[in-house]
Amino acid sequence: MVKLAEQEPPQEALGWAARDASGLLSPFKFSRRATGEKDVKFKVLFCGICHSDLHSLRNDWGFSTFPLVPGHEIVGEVVEVGSKVGKFKVGDKVGVGCLVGSCASCDSCHDHLESYCPKAIWTYNSIYHDGTMTYGGYSNVMVVDEHFGIKFPQNMPLETGAPLLCAGITVYSPMRFFGLDRTGDHLGVVGLGGLGHVAVKFAKAMGVKVTVISSSPGKREEALQRLGADAFLVSSDTNQVQAAMGTMDGIIDTVSVVHPILPLIGLLKHNGKLVLVGSPDRPLELPVFPLLSGRKIVAGSCIGGLKETQEMIDFAAKHNITADVEVVPVDYLNMAMDRLAKGDVKYRFVIDIGNTLKEA
Amino acid sequence: MVKLAEQEPPQEALGWAARDASGLLSPFKFSRRATGEKDVKFKVLFCGICHSDLHSLRNDWGFSTFPLVPGHEIVGEVVEVGSKVGKFKVGDKVGVGCLVGSCASCDSCHDHLESYCPKAIWTYNSIYHDGTMTYGGYSNVMVVDEHFGIKFPQNMPLETGAPLLCAGITVYSPMRFFGLDRTGDHLGVVGLGGLGHVAVKFAKAMGVKVTVISSSPGKREEALQRLGADAFLVSSDTNQVQAAMGTMDGIIDTVSVVHPILPLIGLLKHNGKLVLVGSPDRPLELPVFPLLSGRKIVAGSCIGGLKETQEMIDFAAKHNITADVEVVPVDYLNMAMDRLAKGDVKYRFVIDIGNTLKEA
Repeated sequence: MVKLAEQEPPQEALGWAARDASGLLSPFKFSRRATGEKDVKFKVLFCGICHSDLHSLRNDWGFSTFPLVPGHEIVGEVVEVGSKVGKFKVGDKVGVGCLVGSCASCDSCHDHLESYCPKAIWTYNSIYHDGTMTYGGYSNVMVVDEHFGIKFPQNMPLETGAPLLCAGITVYSPMRFFGLDRTGDHLGVVGLGGLGHVAVKFAKAMGVKVTVISSSPGKREEALQRLGADAFLVSSDTNQVQAAMGTMDGIIDTVSVVHPILPLIGLLKHNGKLVLVGSPDRPLELPVFPLLSGRKIVAGSCIGGLKETQEMIDFAAKHNITADVEVVPVDYLNMAMDRLAKGDVKYRFVIDIGNTLKEA
Repeated sequence: MVKLAEQEPPQEALGWAARDASGLLSPFKFSRRATGEKDVKFKVLFCGICHSDLHSLRNDWGFSTFPLVPGHEIVGEVVEVGSKVGKFKVGDKVGVGCLVGSCASCDSCHDHLESYCPKAIWTYNSIYHDGTMTYGGYSNVMVVDEHFGIKFPQNMPLETGAPLLCAGITVYSPMRFFGLDRTGDHLGVVGLGGLGHVAVKFAKAMGVKVTVISSSPGKREEALQRLGADAFLVSSDTNQVQAAMGTMDGIIDTVSVVHPILPLIGLLKHNGKLVLVGSPDRPLELPVFPLLSGRKIVAGSCIGGLKETQEMIDFAAKHNITADVEVVPVDYLNMAMDRLAKGDVKYRFVIDIGNTLKEA
């Protein structure tokens, strides 16, 4: 997996980058490595804006390296393939999610769980095997090891399919792994944002009964009418929560700020599973007695492996599952970030890179 | 399962009870129900002293009803059986643990998980089907529905086997349910007390590699030499903890006071499981990122069902697993409680009821 430095000269690329923790994005010229024998080179067409892009731009987690080109919900068209590439040919649609590399030798990699590899290489703000910085999908061209390319299904729309590469797999993976995908089971989905709204769609496609749990009473109609959730709970309404106690087989909790999980544990049946996929920056309060008395579980899950991501996108294509998006031009990026910070998007911004990212 | 009031007159019994939250125990005359058609009556021979007896005596949890006769690690000899009893005959040895009743109709009861039945009836300080208070094993005689009696194996010593009925099943059940029983796996056991020391023995009998994690460096030799643990970690020694990071498939945490679980989560491999069986009175701090990044689980487990308790005691008998006990006479009870409060026992007091509980 470790590549020697390429002999070929690097290739020009154009992206939008933040230069410092102000997070302000502007055009940025940089280079991509030459297309190696196992690499595919593709023209980026669409890229979703994930909340973690915003955190990275503003260095909220303290490990951003600038200039930083975000973007890990990327769809493009293959324009060149290396001599040993078997999975893609020129003209294919390819997706790239959060990962572009891993060690390929640890237990996680052997188990197709590259997102848990201790040496996972993230799509941006990470150091690649060749020692160069990785730059994400807010750019016109990418070069990626074919292992980390997802074959984008023919009938999957590019702009609404792109967000599935992060938001989709992040909720799909734990639903499968923790057995929250059984027809007739009852799943709670906490938070109706980029992740939550696709969790509802996946669950419905699996035949699972879904209750959306949200702090915003205003999302009721949206959840029930448009997304097809079976029920809606306002998390602050103790009567509603009380009435639903002990009814859920599992809960996918997408909230990434500190919040109480005692009521969520209460909503679970015995042996129920609360799976956290958002990462608050401070510890949560874990009440122990309610865990013991129902043999309940609190678990975490982080994105998913490549094999599973392919399975997810194929499942989504089969069941016509896409994200609800607002497509924006690249010069709207800074405005989009401000709106995202305020939660003002239903449910994902997607940048139309192919049509709007041009040389000045 | 619900019994009508018995027509037969109740039977005299003698026990030791606390009369108030001072927790001071003294002789107490009371009555047991007449032996119903599905009941067995038995002479109590030995009863273990569980830490929860002490909490109950002192009303630490706020729901004690006095007078309170504790004891839920009880072994005795059957002296009478009801007309429809099939499991026991006079002269059999019988064990009773934490439970003497349940609803018999909920999902938990159908799944042989009576300890998770919302209407579980505890061996003491609980209200039985007939409306009377339950009194525990610090007494000379008991009457119990045969479903809640454990057939005590022939070769299991009574005094050292008694504590398995609570301490044993509390650790055995999660080891089985959460798959922490696989030969060659690596299990951590936090806390080397009544529960922890039998957890080590069960794990070794299952072929599991065991590391004891304790706050007391002085327990090293005991853990390694006498109990046969494979390794010993002092939980406050960051170097030791650091060296063991990511090495454990699961951890059984028996600590019932507030303690940090971040280092314990760190000790787990990916997909590892931290199972809490002690119940601190305040919430623990749950760090979320370490859960996510390794798809780890924090779970709770509460005792076990009757079927599983029988399986546990049969397994223990087969592998010569018993608790390490200090047998005491009944008039030593108040002293034993004081010593237990200070952690001054290896590892369980067991009261010799049969030989020392006499009419004044």
